[in-house]
Amino acid sequence: MKIAIMGFGTVGSGAYESLKNVSDVELVRILARHGRPGYEELDEMITPNIEDIVNDGTIDLVVETIGGIEPAASYVLACLNAGKHVVTANKNLISARFDELMAAAAANGVQLRFTSAVGGGIPWLHNLLRTRRCDEIISIKGIVNGTCNYILDSMADKGVSFDECLKIAQDLGYAEADPSSDIEGTDTLRKTVISSRLAFDTTITEGDIPCYGIDTIDSCDITWMKEKDLTCKLMMTARNTMKGVTACVEPVLLRSDSLESAVKTNNNLITLTAKNLGTQSFYGQGAGSLPTGESVVHDVMDIRDGDKTYAAFGDTAVKCCKDTELHRYYIRHDRMCEHISPLIDEHEEREGIFYCISKPITTAEMHEIGHHRKERGRKLFFARLPEE
Amino acid sequence: MKIAIMGFGTVGSGAYESLKNVSDVELVRILARHGRPGYEELDEMITPNIEDIVNDGTIDLVVETIGGIEPAASYVLACLNAGKHVVTANKNLISARFDELMAAAAANGVQLRFTSAVGGGIPWLHNLLRTRRCDEIISIKGIVNGTCNYILDSMADKGVSFDECLKIAQDLGYAEADPSSDIEGTDTLRKTVISSRLAFDTTITEGDIPCYGIDTIDSCDITWMKEKDLTCKLMMTARNTMKGVTACVEPVLLRSDSLESAVKTNNNLITLTAKNLGTQSFYGQGAGSLPTGESVVHDVMDIRDGDKTYAAFGDTAVKCCKDTELHRYYIRHDRMCEHISPLIDEHEEREGIFYCISKPITTAEMHEIGHHRKERGRKLFFARLPEE
Repeated sequence: MKIAIMGFGTVGSGAYESLKNVSDVELVRILARHGRPGYEELDEMITPNIEDIVNDGTIDLVVETIGGIEPAASYVLACLNAGKHVVTANKNLISARFDELMAAAAANGVQLRFTSAVGGGIPWLHNLLRTRRCDEIISIKGIVNGTCNYILDSMADKGVSFDECLKIAQDLGYAEADPSSDIEGTDTLRKTVISSRLAFDTTITEGDIPCYGIDTIDSCDITWMKEKDLTCKLMMTARNTMKGVTACVEPVLLRSDSLESAVKTNNNLITLTAKNLGTQSFYGQGAGSLPTGESVVHDVMDIRDGDKTYAAFGDTAVKCCKDTELHRYYIRHDRMCEHISPLIDEHEEREGIFYCISKPITTAEMHEIGHHRKERGRKLFFARLPEE
Repeated sequence: MKIAIMGFGTVGSGAYESLKNVSDVELVRILARHGRPGYEELDEMITPNIEDIVNDGTIDLVVETIGGIEPAASYVLACLNAGKHVVTANKNLISARFDELMAAAAANGVQLRFTSAVGGGIPWLHNLLRTRRCDEIISIKGIVNGTCNYILDSMADKGVSFDECLKIAQDLGYAEADPSSDIEGTDTLRKTVISSRLAFDTTITEGDIPCYGIDTIDSCDITWMKEKDLTCKLMMTARNTMKGVTACVEPVLLRSDSLESAVKTNNNLITLTAKNLGTQSFYGQGAGSLPTGESVVHDVMDIRDGDKTYAAFGDTAVKCCKDTELHRYYIRHDRMCEHISPLIDEHEEREGIFYCISKPITTAEMHEIGHHRKERGRKLFFARLPEE
């Protein structure tokens, strides 16, 4: 099978490294403006022109690792419409254009796979889809953003401030120069859309999911949590209720003996609960050149071998719905304003900071107030408390 | 595809439940002495005669859930030799007769799969073999016996004695009436053989692997561990060294913030480390009718779909070798005899019991003394200490 790679950065070059161990797959073209230092052996394959790939009838499959929505979306659609399978690591693209891209793949009788888009090297989506072959997914949850986990873990472990932890994460290459999509939860949100789509055949989109990140967390929150023997993680959660699918991205407090609490540095842990199987979790490197590249190559090999796991999910359209369940939240704010006080069950003041436990409220209520305060420049942090 | 099930107990009936959700697989025969209460709809399929399955040319695949070595081995060989694929959950059989059974499958051009034999419902062997398609496994480790984990977790969590915990595990159906293969480590040993075979293409057998269980653990050990903030788990470990594959089954002490320490009740956690992928773990129900049955059915569906993952491992024969690495052990014994004292770095005596930290010694040395003392009716417990 002949393949091309579009975009030859961190993930593209990682995929190339894994491809060296694979037979019956031949890399013949790379879409890039120029060669990559250290990969001079590939210079002859490089083209800046997408037409060289789309119009090459010998290319069966295209790997997309450009990232972002455009031009990746146009290129992927052109390849699908030219009858080529596509494997992509691009979570932004899949989250934003799921229906359109899957429809294009189906219309052209080719496969579109994106296992590496959630969990990097962890075979999460692969095993999620496999479970669906003979079982029903009830809920999913997970730590899917390594940058946030690194920051939260370092703050708790080393007692370092948010800004310092972010700086170290950037120096280590775990966080981007602009870290907003990580720390505001948008990256986790996209992974929640993609995971929910595959778990539940739902029409859910980014706008349907309440999302609050960790950008307002402070060392004083960590101190409070440690006193209560709790650990904070940014979590995706989604479940299939009788009324539809409901999902959420928010900071969650976990007891110190939970599996999630043991997830250190930039690792991920993703969990499914199915009707017959019960609860199953997958742990590992959620990013990085070689792990993510290897996950891309598994999709390539699965297509080479005629595997149909990605065809296993149907085209029913389970609606999404509002979460009406009530949860208690930890809320930290710098004043007990009229927005906050009606929600609070108990609070404690230390040095002008209010540490509160909310009454049982909905996710939507909590997120609305969090965003309202944030928009007014008043930093508020909250995190869901464990069930009692 | 027409299939038969041999043995219709816990796993066989669990597989039947999962099969209800699967298309293109038709159950036509069940080998059993009599029907199972609650499954009267299957009574017409039941036969006590293996020939009714072996000689039925319409049956493509046979599921073996009889357990034990004989008659399961003869039946499986007869089915393979009749050109039928076999899926089995039988770890005793696969561990004891690996080479012979795999050779019979290869000679007949059929598949022999046994994903559920290690980790029950956890797709451990499936993902291990997938990783090998484009990466190299360096080491594996895991908690693979739910009974031992339940006992160790309950002793630590509830402060209950070994015997009481074992009794509760038996009442809950987690432990057999004769629990010796669980608590002496033999069940973990078999899973270590099977996992090592698939991870490393090694010739390793049960007799090559030092094995010490948890049957000599006492509440006083748990007290000592808690003081040191350590958690005890019965672990399988295996790794590919330059000289060959070395493996071991023994109690291991883990820091309280490790992923393993967070594994509660009868769950399993199994981990691989690969050259490019790094470390990846799989967590879930390692036993039980529905989870294990579902794992059996995944093997059936994979064969139905022409998946070749189980053909991905080669026929090279990596030798096994003695582990020459040195580790420190916690040792608890009722006297400081001439066998123990030369190995001890530091010790503490409390009420006639000696709590010791060993010098760095080999696994073989430690196990030899443990078994020597046990054979003489002197209860000794040991557990490997974490690296410093």
